[in-house]
Amino acid sequence: MRDVTPVYRLGLDVGGTNLRLGVFSDLRLIEETRFEANYSAICKQHSPAQAWQKIIAVTAEAIQPLLEKYPAIQSIGIGFPGFIDPHTGILAQSPNLPGLLNVNLGHDLGARLGFNIRVENDANAAAFGEFSLLGQPAGGLLYLGLGTGVGAGLVVNGHVWAGQHGYALEAGHIIVEHQGRLCGCGNHGCVEQYASATGISKGYAELTGQTRSALEIALAAEQGDEHARAVYADVGRKLAQMLASVLKVVDVGTVLIGGGVVAAWSLMSEAFYQRLEADLIPVLRGKIVVHLSRSGDIAGMLGAALLAESTTRSA
Amino acid sequence: MRDVTPVYRLGLDVGGTNLRLGVFSDLRLIEETRFEANYSAICKQHSPAQAWQKIIAVTAEAIQPLLEKYPAIQSIGIGFPGFIDPHTGILAQSPNLPGLLNVNLGHDLGARLGFNIRVENDANAAAFGEFSLLGQPAGGLLYLGLGTGVGAGLVVNGHVWAGQHGYALEAGHIIVEHQGRLCGCGNHGCVEQYASATGISKGYAELTGQTRSALEIALAAEQGDEHARAVYADVGRKLAQMLASVLKVVDVGTVLIGGGVVAAWSLMSEAFYQRLEADLIPVLRGKIVVHLSRSGDIAGMLGAALLAESTTRSA
Repeated sequence: MRDVTPVYRLGLDVGGTNLRLGVFSDLRLIEETRFEANYSAICKQHSPAQAWQKIIAVTAEAIQPLLEKYPAIQSIGIGFPGFIDPHTGILAQSPNLPGLLNVNLGHDLGARLGFNIRVENDANAAAFGEFSLLGQPAGGLLYLGLGTGVGAGLVVNGHVWAGQHGYALEAGHIIVEHQGRLCGCGNHGCVEQYASATGISKGYAELTGQTRSALEIALAAEQGDEHARAVYADVGRKLAQMLASVLKVVDVGTVLIGGGVVAAWSLMSEAFYQRLEADLIPVLRGKIVVHLSRSGDIAGMLGAALLAESTTRSA
Repeated sequence: MRDVTPVYRLGLDVGGTNLRLGVFSDLRLIEETRFEANYSAICKQHSPAQAWQKIIAVTAEAIQPLLEKYPAIQSIGIGFPGFIDPHTGILAQSPNLPGLLNVNLGHDLGARLGFNIRVENDANAAAFGEFSLLGQPAGGLLYLGLGTGVGAGLVVNGHVWAGQHGYALEAGHIIVEHQGRLCGCGNHGCVEQYASATGISKGYAELTGQTRSALEIALAAEQGDEHARAVYADVGRKLAQMLASVLKVVDVGTVLIGGGVVAAWSLMSEAFYQRLEADLIPVLRGKIVVHLSRSGDIAGMLGAALLAESTTRSA
């Protein structure tokens, strides 16, 4: 009997605003739940200890109905924004969820639900999800996620590369503009301040004095707004500048770019490729394949689910 | 009998001018030979095919007497400057040895000497040598070598990280000055154009119009020459700028800086640490330990010898 029971995995993708839960059978999404959990607001409105209890409760309540509906769920993985120790699972800090310091989501939530839960940095989870959806390219995969911030993750030899302290591939904080915009991390001129949705809005505001969303700016660019076009071209250049630096360190041939900002890729691609060709070491020219994500943004949930596959129900 | 015979390893460190050969017993240097092989001049004076034959001959002649003197030599490893495929050992290109394209030193020399010879990028070999001399730190080691150029190598999980094409850790070519000095690699503004001995000479010439060696400029700085001091401070800043970018990608807590330029470290260190603190992601501040090499420049030979330890005499 046991062998014919389907094996399901649950993956969570945690953002500052939205919580998404996906039930997977291998790479296939069986059911998705998505709602506004507002973790970011919870952190701002409560003491860190209270906020943490609320986050555990909200997350457990979101998971519980899926566990009841799908008893075949064997493992739970979570992609969480922040600096997470790969050995202990402890979150050292989350720039988007202020106040959460040295908490252990996997432990606290797992104790409540009776599961061993694996928590990964959200960009690492997305990197592993995209790597799996691309058929596990032999040379590995470098993932860049352009959303509210700029995240990155690297998969090599089939494993996520976390670094000694869990802070590898913080490529969003590579500095591309000396004495540039102040970043939430404390540095100046991080690529995240330019190539994220937030950065695009800042760039347009600097040029025009007007506050627009990244999407509105993309629409304006398509209608011929020169300032909007200039902002997106600058994003393409700065992204390539960062990518060339990363590739000089890790030398991975397959790059995948995901995240909401990719919808405006046609506004960036020319400047991006021009700068990438100029900045790559010549022996790597022509050896880098850049894919745009086609996963429809499920990679974060999928990667979290797959990375947790070795864990099992503890109850 | 066999168990009491000492096991020796031979390591070569190939530069554009000098060839160095070291016989090692574990980490201990038994004998060193060093002479001007002038590979760079050989490459400039002959056709690529002739140059290659000459290089093989010169190298074999340098090795032969050591093999006769130390029959206990069990393996030969070579640190060679250039882009080397980690799987095949083929040298794709060597910026300092023009004309050598797609040659296989390990194969050609090994056939002549009756050994399986392992060839590694010279900075990778030095990284592995320093890693071994430091007692193999658990979190790995990032090596930066400041010599004629700027090389780098990374050891993680006990292995040199070569990347998909063998071009990982080309950190000397990370761009630190937009539209800066033209580099031999074809890019503009690579850190190697500033933080190498050659780069230091260029910096001083730009400020004063005078051609001086890096050592002469260091002596001038110590005697109060403001331009010389400014050049070395700029080296410290640009080195830190590059290092912060590399650490945002690989997250390794132990950094070792070697190479001849390190002799002038006191002229760079203040600017270096100031900039490193500013550019690191805050969660890594205080977690990075920077060592200066104390190996007296034997790390390249030692690393090459150790990396070859699994190969054996084939004849």
